[in-house]
Amino acid sequence: MNSKDMCFLTISEAAALLASKELSPVDLVEAHLARIADTGAPLNTFVTLLADEARESAMKAERVIQAGRYRGPLHGIPIGLKDLYYTKGIRTTVGSKIMGDFIPDFDAAVTESFQEAGAILMGKLQMHEFALGGTSENPHHGPARNPWNTGRITGGSSGGSGAAVAAGQCMASLGSDTGGSVRIPAGACGIVGLKPTYGLVSRHGVFPLSHSLDTVGPMTRTVRDTAIILNAIAGHDSRDLSSADRPRQDYTAGLDNGVRGLRIGVPQEYFYDSIDDEITDAIKAVAGILQGLGAIVEDVSIPVLDQSIPISGAILITEAAEVHMDGLRDRPDDFGADVRGRLQIGAATSAVDYIKAQRARVVFNREVAEVMKIYDLLLAPTVGIGAPNLGDQVVAVAGEQHQKLAVMPRLTRPFNLTGAPTISVPCGFTSDGMPIGMQLSGRAFEDALVLRAAQAYESATEWHTRRPPI
Amino acid sequence: MNSKDMCFLTISEAAALLASKELSPVDLVEAHLARIADTGAPLNTFVTLLADEARESAMKAERVIQAGRYRGPLHGIPIGLKDLYYTKGIRTTVGSKIMGDFIPDFDAAVTESFQEAGAILMGKLQMHEFALGGTSENPHHGPARNPWNTGRITGGSSGGSGAAVAAGQCMASLGSDTGGSVRIPAGACGIVGLKPTYGLVSRHGVFPLSHSLDTVGPMTRTVRDTAIILNAIAGHDSRDLSSADRPRQDYTAGLDNGVRGLRIGVPQEYFYDSIDDEITDAIKAVAGILQGLGAIVEDVSIPVLDQSIPISGAILITEAAEVHMDGLRDRPDDFGADVRGRLQIGAATSAVDYIKAQRARVVFNREVAEVMKIYDLLLAPTVGIGAPNLGDQVVAVAGEQHQKLAVMPRLTRPFNLTGAPTISVPCGFTSDGMPIGMQLSGRAFEDALVLRAAQAYESATEWHTRRPPI
Repeated sequence: MNSKDMCFLTISEAAALLASKELSPVDLVEAHLARIADTGAPLNTFVTLLADEARESAMKAERVIQAGRYRGPLHGIPIGLKDLYYTKGIRTTVGSKIMGDFIPDFDAAVTESFQEAGAILMGKLQMHEFALGGTSENPHHGPARNPWNTGRITGGSSGGSGAAVAAGQCMASLGSDTGGSVRIPAGACGIVGLKPTYGLVSRHGVFPLSHSLDTVGPMTRTVRDTAIILNAIAGHDSRDLSSADRPRQDYTAGLDNGVRGLRIGVPQEYFYDSIDDEITDAIKAVAGILQGLGAIVEDVSIPVLDQSIPISGAILITEAAEVHMDGLRDRPDDFGADVRGRLQIGAATSAVDYIKAQRARVVFNREVAEVMKIYDLLLAPTVGIGAPNLGDQVVAVAGEQHQKLAVMPRLTRPFNLTGAPTISVPCGFTSDGMPIGMQLSGRAFEDALVLRAAQAYESATEWHTRRPPI
Repeated sequence: MNSKDMCFLTISEAAALLASKELSPVDLVEAHLARIADTGAPLNTFVTLLADEARESAMKAERVIQAGRYRGPLHGIPIGLKDLYYTKGIRTTVGSKIMGDFIPDFDAAVTESFQEAGAILMGKLQMHEFALGGTSENPHHGPARNPWNTGRITGGSSGGSGAAVAAGQCMASLGSDTGGSVRIPAGACGIVGLKPTYGLVSRHGVFPLSHSLDTVGPMTRTVRDTAIILNAIAGHDSRDLSSADRPRQDYTAGLDNGVRGLRIGVPQEYFYDSIDDEITDAIKAVAGILQGLGAIVEDVSIPVLDQSIPISGAILITEAAEVHMDGLRDRPDDFGADVRGRLQIGAATSAVDYIKAQRARVVFNREVAEVMKIYDLLLAPTVGIGAPNLGDQVVAVAGEQHQKLAVMPRLTRPFNLTGAPTISVPCGFTSDGMPIGMQLSGRAFEDALVLRAAQAYESATEWHTRRPPI
């Protein structure tokens, strides 16, 4: 196997080779470091590369595995972390100038989980400043670039993670998803991204964006790999006050049970109001494939979805402003203009307007929950366009001009409000060669069902096997 | 039995007589109407008296019972409702000028429940304007007066309910408790008042004060009667989005099982910071009695209680302002000065400060929950003083001057933040003859345990048998 092919193994493939000692973690890490050397700078993925540490961890993993103490499917697997996960002794910039020198003195819960699983941290990945935006055009670190076309954005805010995983620089990354920040770059970069149920994965040691919306989510190249990552990171943590106290489960179990008999609703109106035709066509094709696999796929109307942006917007920017009040007061010029502007609006928002939004959210969630009494899953596009050009403020969607920052999270936000488990899976390409993603959203804590349906689709298609041109 | 004695029967006593046809609902209602004629005006309890309707309902109840269709322990029982419960076709002022002409076209869920149980609504009871205050000194309807001394306040906001039940004008009332509005007047008027677990009783058709704190609660003269009322009103209601979906239970079952082996914590510091010595002594006596009954009673320190007022205050006035934004804009002069002032502060509060308060509440609740891993119940005074004079802005507490409006809810607020079931039970009298109340607070949805402990104390004491001088 050549070095580049090694980088495009799935985690489950690599794990089998590592467990049987046919593959050395040292070779695997060296292959990824070579890949990063080739493509890291053009994609601008790593804020902090941990080459020496990764080599050391790989050698340790090799010794341990050789000694017969293989730990499981993440042992020796090269991974990345969006640069908002606390890493003890390692700079954690949160994509910002303000936190540019921050070196945490403890690890995030998920950092700990990866260490316990024996995964190898390759470095900290580029992101939209403070995770507050869906483009990953970062004024401090530069934009992440899309491996399918380096003139295009990756989507965000976990843009470096999307590009790094898509380009084979690491086998998985953790993004975070508050308004779509895992699913948008997963969709735009042609990989799998899961926003787990709110409360399923600990946020201890994750720099917050918006407390009532923030989630931690895996980004990988296959659904099975996402299930493997979720197994390592899901579970109750009393250090995160929103963490749900539920029994652990194995998300790889039942993954191949298919979609026969599952009821899948395809919400109309909102999701197709303003998206490109070829995205609509891709989702129709997905619906056809799922139906062919035995699912019951039906169009459904959920009028309340129209409120997704006003409700989630008011909640997100006010909760973000609460986090950043000191920075806004003391160092306003150290924020990028887009982030500062939104934080300032959040800071100026009244409690009454925030309360209205949270109350509207309750009604919103009830309306969606009513639909979920009938349907096991909802199917929707992830982003209404293929990844647009770097630098443009305005993009064309279905022939009309829209703010790029508004377009990117338009279709992902509903499921942050509901807190429901939602995955983005590759489902095609635009005519100009950019990946298209589709979302499957389930009921709260039915993450396993979401993964199972995604796996059924993935197994029936080959989108996940395509490699970007870089 | 003379007419006045009839008014001081407990519900369970009256129910036995009604069931056996030894007592006529018509006689019972006439006795109460006579009692209201004697004491209603001096106590200023009824905003709307429903004499004709009550007589008609009594005659109907009599016919139904005579026909052998006795419905259960509330059938034919005269009750009142705080004037914020929607009553179809009957004026519901919410203690305000602004809603002075409001005639709801539907019943509150609890109004329906009482009707189904065959209870007889005597009228709508006086309250603090919009429930936003703990004195029931109402600029539009006049103050409710305490039956133990008509120169004193009843506490609030359910002041009319406290006075009416204490004076035998009705056998029960429903108050509402957002910061103590059931427990404060129960304590100040010498009756029993329960704030059930947040979410246990439907708030459909209850004019809101603060959505994340509001609860509906029975006010009666005995613990058993409160359990009887709770049986009628507890249960899931999808029309109230905060309503908990839990199985119904019988709150009178196990009421006499005593407190042997229960662990009761007596939080120090906060509850005794600024209260009269005779209140402290009364609580010590309660602790002794509970210990004598076999409970394990221990002092406990919960430092976070010091944050009760800043946290609950910020939440309460902002959520209240959200309800009243139109009124504040269009009819500011139609609010009483105290209520308008607090609503204006709420309207001017930033989302960031509200979010800080809600986040602090999460930490607060976790701290209290840690203590509740050890203790089944907490014991505390309800109010730090006996009911003070009408009209005074400032009252003496332990020799120091304090704002009356701030003193009244100081000790009840912690349990609105936690949402825990909390009862106020009479436990003595001050040297100047005003009732003293004590609170027992349990774990969420352990309302039955709270009632059981309160019943054990009540059975061992005679405070509940005292009648006010009026």
